[in-house]
Amino acid sequence: MIKRERGIIFVVSAPSGTGKTTLCKMLLSDLEGIVFSVSYTTRPPRKGEVNGRDYFFVSEEEFRELIKKGELVEYALVYGNFYGTSKSFIEEKISNGLDVLLDIDVQGAKRILEYYTDAVGIFIFPPSFDELRRRLEKRGTDSPEAVETRLMIAKKEMKMADMYHYWIVNDHLERAYVNFKSIFIAERSRSGRLTVEGL
Amino acid sequence: MIKRERGIIFVVSAPSGTGKTTLCKMLLSDLEGIVFSVSYTTRPPRKGEVNGRDYFFVSEEEFRELIKKGELVEYALVYGNFYGTSKSFIEEKISNGLDVLLDIDVQGAKRILEYYTDAVGIFIFPPSFDELRRRLEKRGTDSPEAVETRLMIAKKEMKMADMYHYWIVNDHLERAYVNFKSIFIAERSRSGRLTVEGL
Repeated sequence: MIKRERGIIFVVSAPSGTGKTTLCKMLLSDLEGIVFSVSYTTRPPRKGEVNGRDYFFVSEEEFRELIKKGELVEYALVYGNFYGTSKSFIEEKISNGLDVLLDIDVQGAKRILEYYTDAVGIFIFPPSFDELRRRLEKRGTDSPEAVETRLMIAKKEMKMADMYHYWIVNDHLERAYVNFKSIFIAERSRSGRLTVEGL
Repeated sequence: MIKRERGIIFVVSAPSGTGKTTLCKMLLSDLEGIVFSVSYTTRPPRKGEVNGRDYFFVSEEEFRELIKKGELVEYALVYGNFYGTSKSFIEEKISNGLDVLLDIDVQGAKRILEYYTDAVGIFIFPPSFDELRRRLEKRGTDSPEAVETRLMIAKKEMKMADMYHYWIVNDHLERAYVNFKSIFIAERSRSGRLTVEGL
């Protein structure tokens, strides 16, 4: 009686150390009908990375060609490498009724939410700054100065959280995951995404 | 870091025989922080019904006074008895941070969704008309003519489903409940209902 024809685009952002990657991985292994967005990059593949699964690995020349063709919703230069979101990947999935999950920074999320106006934005907050500092220090991958830089960036990112439709606080992983997952399920029941048949 | 100060008003409607009452009861016994809206009625209490829990039982004179005072968001006359939704009940609960669940017909839902513009509407569909007919016949409380009348009303109600934010199909109770419950959890994470502190 009720039909949904198109998949939904979910855009997830969070400051570094908030547990975004963990939440996204849990979701993808738990929920059916959703796939992770595969981006283009000019960075060389790392050990174990597979072309077409982790990234579409392309040359800088190919990347510039993709920009020219309008195939990238957004792109960015990070430490000398280009990264870009593929329109054709996203649109093929959603037109087949599959949802797409994008794990992306606030700048990229802004472009995507502007371009795909029916996309759903989710921002994940740490419980507090003190807790975020503790997590980053515990991770041990950053110098004290780098931790402070990450915290400053986190503050700036959180100030852009208004553009996201949902906010999750990752204070306790299992609890945060219940809230996170509920968003994906609930959005599938939004009347605007559905059509009634046989009335 | 994130705070929600006001509760959310959830308005649930469904054609008779769709399983709305079951879903609402499951939710209220499963989820914390949500209460059932207590309405006014001029009908006499049935056995076991408690004033202030099931209904606020009032005289017709008192009911007319409530209308005059503007205390009712909506009201209706059903089989000679008045039923009305209490503004003060709802507003006291949501200002204390409690969510309120209203189980109400499409006419009443329309008024409430118009009056409380941040309320959330959920409409529950049967899997099909044939299945709805089977369920109503199986219930055995209606004559064949009454079943046909209910089906006609159901069709009319479904045509008003557009005003609801979410649509649930009750094809399989456990599955429908997961979708139903997710809406209540997800709405609590809507950024528009939250404020960030300490940024």
